[in-house]
Amino acid sequence: MLPESLNRLEEKFRIYRSKLYATDETPKLIAPRASSDFVVLKPQNTQEVAEILKFANEMKIPVFVRGGGTGLSGGAVPISSGIVLSTERLKEIKIDEKNRFADCGAGVTLYELEKAAERHGLSFPPHPGAETATVGGMIATNAGGMRALKYGTIRNYVLCCEVVLADGSILEVGSRTLKNSTGYSLLHLFIGSEGTLGVITKATLKLFPSMRGSVGVVAAFESLEEAAEKSLELTKLLPLSLELVEDRAVKIGEEVTGKRWPGEGKAYIFAIFEDFEDSEMASDVLRMDVYVATKKELKDLMSIRGSIYEGIKDKIIEILDVCVPPAEVPKYIKMSSQIARKYGVDVITYGHAGDGNIHQHPLIYDGWEKSYFNFRDEIFNVALSLGGVISGEHGIGTVKKEEFRRYYAKQYELMKKIKNLMDPNGILNPGKIF
Amino acid sequence: MLPESLNRLEEKFRIYRSKLYATDETPKLIAPRASSDFVVLKPQNTQEVAEILKFANEMKIPVFVRGGGTGLSGGAVPISSGIVLSTERLKEIKIDEKNRFADCGAGVTLYELEKAAERHGLSFPPHPGAETATVGGMIATNAGGMRALKYGTIRNYVLCCEVVLADGSILEVGSRTLKNSTGYSLLHLFIGSEGTLGVITKATLKLFPSMRGSVGVVAAFESLEEAAEKSLELTKLLPLSLELVEDRAVKIGEEVTGKRWPGEGKAYIFAIFEDFEDSEMASDVLRMDVYVATKKELKDLMSIRGSIYEGIKDKIIEILDVCVPPAEVPKYIKMSSQIARKYGVDVITYGHAGDGNIHQHPLIYDGWEKSYFNFRDEIFNVALSLGGVISGEHGIGTVKKEEFRRYYAKQYELMKKIKNLMDPNGILNPGKIF
Repeated sequence: MLPESLNRLEEKFRIYRSKLYATDETPKLIAPRASSDFVVLKPQNTQEVAEILKFANEMKIPVFVRGGGTGLSGGAVPISSGIVLSTERLKEIKIDEKNRFADCGAGVTLYELEKAAERHGLSFPPHPGAETATVGGMIATNAGGMRALKYGTIRNYVLCCEVVLADGSILEVGSRTLKNSTGYSLLHLFIGSEGTLGVITKATLKLFPSMRGSVGVVAAFESLEEAAEKSLELTKLLPLSLELVEDRAVKIGEEVTGKRWPGEGKAYIFAIFEDFEDSEMASDVLRMDVYVATKKELKDLMSIRGSIYEGIKDKIIEILDVCVPPAEVPKYIKMSSQIARKYGVDVITYGHAGDGNIHQHPLIYDGWEKSYFNFRDEIFNVALSLGGVISGEHGIGTVKKEEFRRYYAKQYELMKKIKNLMDPNGILNPGKIF
Repeated sequence: MLPESLNRLEEKFRIYRSKLYATDETPKLIAPRASSDFVVLKPQNTQEVAEILKFANEMKIPVFVRGGGTGLSGGAVPISSGIVLSTERLKEIKIDEKNRFADCGAGVTLYELEKAAERHGLSFPPHPGAETATVGGMIATNAGGMRALKYGTIRNYVLCCEVVLADGSILEVGSRTLKNSTGYSLLHLFIGSEGTLGVITKATLKLFPSMRGSVGVVAAFESLEEAAEKSLELTKLLPLSLELVEDRAVKIGEEVTGKRWPGEGKAYIFAIFEDFEDSEMASDVLRMDVYVATKKELKDLMSIRGSIYEGIKDKIIEILDVCVPPAEVPKYIKMSSQIARKYGVDVITYGHAGDGNIHQHPLIYDGWEKSYFNFRDEIFNVALSLGGVISGEHGIGTVKKEEFRRYYAKQYELMKKIKNLMDPNGILNPGKIF
């Protein structure tokens, strides 16, 4: 139960109790159960975040930081009695056109960031799915997404952050420079720390000149394995993104959007290039005809690809998110399909083949509770045996923490020590990662 | 004095006592003084590194890790009685052509890495100056260099490392994948940690397809300030590198190499583009004629640029290495020139204008000991006031540790706690950073 002392906060902050803050986008069957005993605070600036943390630390009250609530691993769910700290009001955004930096409050959404950059003739290349994701959330989870192939995940775009530590003190990490060699990179320690080391309140992100172009290419194949084999060759052309999509996934996206995907196959490669020349070379590299999309068509393709999750999310147990070395994708697809057949699990596959980050979507089946976690463990073991990891971009959150502890015991131990050092009372997003 | 117990090591390892291991490339006037009481060990594999650290940790003997000894901040100098652990025998290298990864021992040099990549039709874009720099050293210092502008510093190329911790235990950090979202990035904690958190023994680096081309462009200006103003506009074309070079620096490079630099000016922009088109656009963007170098000429330009330090190093006090937001370069150049005039310090400037990392070389003058550090402090304060940092790529080592402590007190404190957590006996590169 939340302590009486919460009254002290009520004098200063409006306290919300909306159940909308109890969940994120994690598929229901695997999502953690929210506590029925949490309050929501919406600080308006860094000072208020600092006050809340100072108070929570003194009182040893758990603080669950929340950005856009678009996470897929239960990271934002308040799983015990405590405070949900929503960054939604940290909204200031300033585009520094000359430096091509965006100075953002943690609550700025991906959509707002993209629009602001565009107004200044600039762009923010990565695109981690949900446009309601926030800057703070994308950094705290080191979000990836489709366009992480050429220029990397969010990690590569963050120059500095303002963070509030567990005791309420405010720290700047990183700098507004493109290079920095002043001691350990505390910045990179916070990137991907899932709200467990501090609350990100501001960040400076690197922008790019407007993309010179983006040309979509679609190639159809007889099987997912064949598409996977071919996709590796295409990476030589350094596309912005390189997706592998099963036909069933395409059909779901078509249904949701009412739009049409080109070609007929069991599986597709969908690549985006910066230059038209490269898109032409794609045909040579693949030694086959490819469909080159017009600008308008590319929008439709993106929209179909982006809508698959919406159409599928109520039918699946979860989204697997393993990442393997790119050259191992064909083998991974083959081996994981065998495991799926063995367990009788029907899996719909699409994902970022170019960087080896494959999303597999096991459909709900009767009695799944009995065999699913064995199936999943076998999948994880295949990924690990190929040099892969159990999460490429969705993070550990609550949904993979047992496996994380098991498979990464040594690293876990050191991470836990760092966690204890920086949050001795364990108030920051407890029950996540660890 | 080194303890008698060193005999225990002598049973297993050959012990070297060469004075060649007492210095690195730090300019003499500012370099730390080496102890006269150190021994050199050259382990042949990770297991041997682990044995040495276990022993040193038990005996509380300082261990100074050494790569190519090309550092510029005193990072590799054994400043107290102890062991110099040279990684020079950790030489295995395997190019994984399909994944475009290089699996390297820490002692592989930049030159060896580049040649190995080339043999497989691949490339390693960044180029931190000295080709005798080692993979381990480049990672431990997060080396930058000329070609860090488009694709970033070494940090962006490291996928995983094997490290030996202070107690001799072996840890894998990162993974052989392009994405990884499994807990805190311990990998990035080791990158740039200057040998103070662990010894890097192996690393997997990301390679690129062979550069499609590299086209050099030179533009001459009447002043350094003017060149600085113009260089910012050129960054929109995303060159691989964008250098600002004072004519005096060019002349020194010409003398060393016997080669000729094109154009007549007080200062030059020297940019390298991947595409010929972009090099043509450079002229439009600058609204002036530029010199476009043939492939052979570009080699000469690189050679002149790369030889300046050789010709200048005995005449300078040190290399300043501040990094400011790119748009602040003109202001920084102006303000720092004023300070130099005030102190009567003659400074030769060249550096990576595109990413805001300016190298200034104060020439030795009579009585420099009396005023130089005040001059330097004013320079650092200007950089900090513009949102910059005191080191962009050379690191803290011994030469900036007092300033680091002073200017970055809060970050310093947290870093020191992490250091104490991971190396409680303080054996790893003591006296560096902290």
